[in-house]
Amino acid sequence: MAKELTSRSENYSQWYNDLVVKADLAENSAVRGCMVIKPYGYAIWEKMQAELDRMFKETGHVNAYFPLFIPKSFFSKEAAHVEGFAKECAVVTHYRLKNDPNGKGIVVDPDAKLEEELIVRPTSETIIWNTYKNWIQSYRDLPILCNQWANVVRWEMRTRLFLRTAEFLWQEGHTAHATKQEALEETERMVNVYAEFAESFMALPVIKGAKSENERFAGALETYTIEALMQDGKALQSGTSHFLGQNFAKAFDVKFANRDGKDEYVWATSWGVSTRLMGALVMAHSDDNGLVLPPKLAPFQVVIVPIYRKEEQLAEISSKVDEVVAKLKAKGITVKYDNLDTKKPGWKFAEYELKGVPVRLAIGPRDLENGTVEVARRDTLTKEVVELESIDQYVADLLEDIQQNIYKKALDYRTEHTTPVDTYEELKEVLNTKGGFVLAHWDGTAETEQKIKEETKATIRCIPFDGMKEEGKCIYSGKPSSQRVLFALAY
Amino acid sequence: MAKELTSRSENYSQWYNDLVVKADLAENSAVRGCMVIKPYGYAIWEKMQAELDRMFKETGHVNAYFPLFIPKSFFSKEAAHVEGFAKECAVVTHYRLKNDPNGKGIVVDPDAKLEEELIVRPTSETIIWNTYKNWIQSYRDLPILCNQWANVVRWEMRTRLFLRTAEFLWQEGHTAHATKQEALEETERMVNVYAEFAESFMALPVIKGAKSENERFAGALETYTIEALMQDGKALQSGTSHFLGQNFAKAFDVKFANRDGKDEYVWATSWGVSTRLMGALVMAHSDDNGLVLPPKLAPFQVVIVPIYRKEEQLAEISSKVDEVVAKLKAKGITVKYDNLDTKKPGWKFAEYELKGVPVRLAIGPRDLENGTVEVARRDTLTKEVVELESIDQYVADLLEDIQQNIYKKALDYRTEHTTPVDTYEELKEVLNTKGGFVLAHWDGTAETEQKIKEETKATIRCIPFDGMKEEGKCIYSGKPSSQRVLFALAY
Repeated sequence: MAKELTSRSENYSQWYNDLVVKADLAENSAVRGCMVIKPYGYAIWEKMQAELDRMFKETGHVNAYFPLFIPKSFFSKEAAHVEGFAKECAVVTHYRLKNDPNGKGIVVDPDAKLEEELIVRPTSETIIWNTYKNWIQSYRDLPILCNQWANVVRWEMRTRLFLRTAEFLWQEGHTAHATKQEALEETERMVNVYAEFAESFMALPVIKGAKSENERFAGALETYTIEALMQDGKALQSGTSHFLGQNFAKAFDVKFANRDGKDEYVWATSWGVSTRLMGALVMAHSDDNGLVLPPKLAPFQVVIVPIYRKEEQLAEISSKVDEVVAKLKAKGITVKYDNLDTKKPGWKFAEYELKGVPVRLAIGPRDLENGTVEVARRDTLTKEVVELESIDQYVADLLEDIQQNIYKKALDYRTEHTTPVDTYEELKEVLNTKGGFVLAHWDGTAETEQKIKEETKATIRCIPFDGMKEEGKCIYSGKPSSQRVLFALAY
Repeated sequence: MAKELTSRSENYSQWYNDLVVKADLAENSAVRGCMVIKPYGYAIWEKMQAELDRMFKETGHVNAYFPLFIPKSFFSKEAAHVEGFAKECAVVTHYRLKNDPNGKGIVVDPDAKLEEELIVRPTSETIIWNTYKNWIQSYRDLPILCNQWANVVRWEMRTRLFLRTAEFLWQEGHTAHATKQEALEETERMVNVYAEFAESFMALPVIKGAKSENERFAGALETYTIEALMQDGKALQSGTSHFLGQNFAKAFDVKFANRDGKDEYVWATSWGVSTRLMGALVMAHSDDNGLVLPPKLAPFQVVIVPIYRKEEQLAEISSKVDEVVAKLKAKGITVKYDNLDTKKPGWKFAEYELKGVPVRLAIGPRDLENGTVEVARRDTLTKEVVELESIDQYVADLLEDIQQNIYKKALDYRTEHTTPVDTYEELKEVLNTKGGFVLAHWDGTAETEQKIKEETKATIRCIPFDGMKEEGKCIYSGKPSSQRVLFALAY
């Protein structure tokens, strides 16, 4: 293979970086911590966006757009929020460059200093709630169910492509409600949308649950999360939905007249997923040969490679391929015919394996004689010879099967790597050996959580929604507990 | 009407601002020069994006994403480019806030100063060509046909919603080619795509042409433009496509090995349209009652308002409306049924007129008896009573008719307001009276163009592609000229 990958067993982290770059998903840019999302990677992100956007609209949301910049003073208004984001902000202080009077090229013009510094948004609660203040007078103006697709900046010191970058793309939903109950329902609705998206489109099984207080979003009263397990046994937080209570309404003085004409503070939620999902997609399914993409998110689901020795054979093959392409497209299948003559079939096979194309068809002169085609599936790396006549239905079924198989494989991995433990020793033992999710009793205190984190690096990923109630004792303090929580090492 | 607009004749500029705000398209934010695009406005922008994105992909382009920030030094590399953008840049100088040691809230941390300042992109040629350098080795890597949907920032001093804002949304295509010819063809292809989009979807007639040297993009050898005429007789540049020659390839040292193995600099284009198109859409078609939206870009094309006195009549009307909605949707028509009982029909009529919904249906008890429905079209403000039976086909045809009528109206206006003149006096006379486009001979020099601009404020909008060759004399200098060019006052 032209572009060799480090294997997962050799160096998982290096394997991931190699793969993201070599499969043309993304690369580092000249700007520290900022990535370039390359066309092949962006095409996957566009498919994610399209499905999520559809799901948001089906649940009653509309899109809008709010400013990139946030006045510095807005940040100070919600105490927990500023604490969470102030340490990693890109700050705009000037609005003009000029030629250096000493001839040293171009410099910041000191005369063009902003009166108040502007923060490049790390998240938009403050600017949005300052806007909502003018949109909300009465209960009739509620609920507001807005989402925005945007870029945000968090000045992370250690960055990794997709997983943690200074700038990333995301969507952030910001909703305003008349009652606590309604806001809580919205918070739950959106974590369910994320779980549905992860499982049905990304083929990624996730655990839904609530974050412990330590791990909540800065300014939230509750953070719900979906947690996925990567192939190295580490957890990846893949989407969060926050119940913000009346914190931002109070910080920005957003009240509404209720049905009785009395003023009340508005209830808020926010929820987001980001290009981090690209990292989850890569790490959950791919192998030492390259990406393994679920058909529902693959930029193209099928690639067709002609196999021939003589130029004149190509015309005949291409004519048959045109028919196949038309039949596949009629079934809504996206397909690429790679008839470039500058690369050999073997090179192409490796390239499309690297890029995770779910199904590869190879057609040569003997296939034309026999009315057959060779079908290779990416997820299992197996091949079959199939009748050309019914290839469209065969491929349609195969894509469905691949989608389910990828999900099942990830689910099996997670099942094998989810371990209930009853002692702290066991927790440490599991973390040091097989890794994965560990279900253990916890006394519910931030102190215990912090101690365990310091001693093992494991964090509470969530308190699972569907965790069975079960009496037990905290593995650390021995105090009573009524439900196991999910521990793991995490990205 | 609840929300009254200033009339166009009274104060066109005020009318525009009123309309943008009152029709819920956009509003000013707390950040100087930055707007909030509200859900109704954003829904129109999404429709624009969807059509443009489809057209870009049909012409072979792919989407990608490049960093928001550009290192300051990159700007200095292309001399004309830095000259054009340095004076209006948002500059990031720090990456952290902290609590003020003197207790004055939150301040910029002086210890977190960036080694090199970062510019919030006003356009992305520099960061993209710095990236392309690594993507291009040989002619086999060409062409690169990338587009990105992004936000950009230009620190304009005087801003107006959509037309000129510090932050705006746009797409920027950046292509790389092996030959000058191919790059020129791309430049022309994309200005044609823009013209096709403006005319077919925005119902906006445009003049295609080349910019004079004075008016070119900073760093371009040619700028092609589409110019539209607004109802106040001023021109609005609505989209541009630039032939950048080898300027950026030279600035960033981007070479490729040609078929003979020799190194050559790569040829470049860039092209963009922005949320400014929203301003064009509003100003070209709307009237004193509110927006007039072309059906192809309306968030919903039809609104249905029930007319009733007694609660029990509503159920019967709604049941019939459900049938109508189903039939309209089956024809691909988007429709909203407004059965909210908190507003009267008269209020709703005014509201949807303000919002430019192309077709309004009103159904009352007598309509149910007669099997009819009242159909009002927004563009002409006329009403008809139509058989309910065939309402779906009637509305489908009507929407098509409205789309064409809006275009025709704008074209008629432009035709009436395009004046050929042969003397400088005539030019001034026309500019001072009816305004609009003025076709006049020009000697081709920057000096003459500049003089005319200083004396009349009119600029050369473009040298039209389909301007007939015609010998004449420059209206200012009397020197020979072979084609009339398009003068106008402009936004």
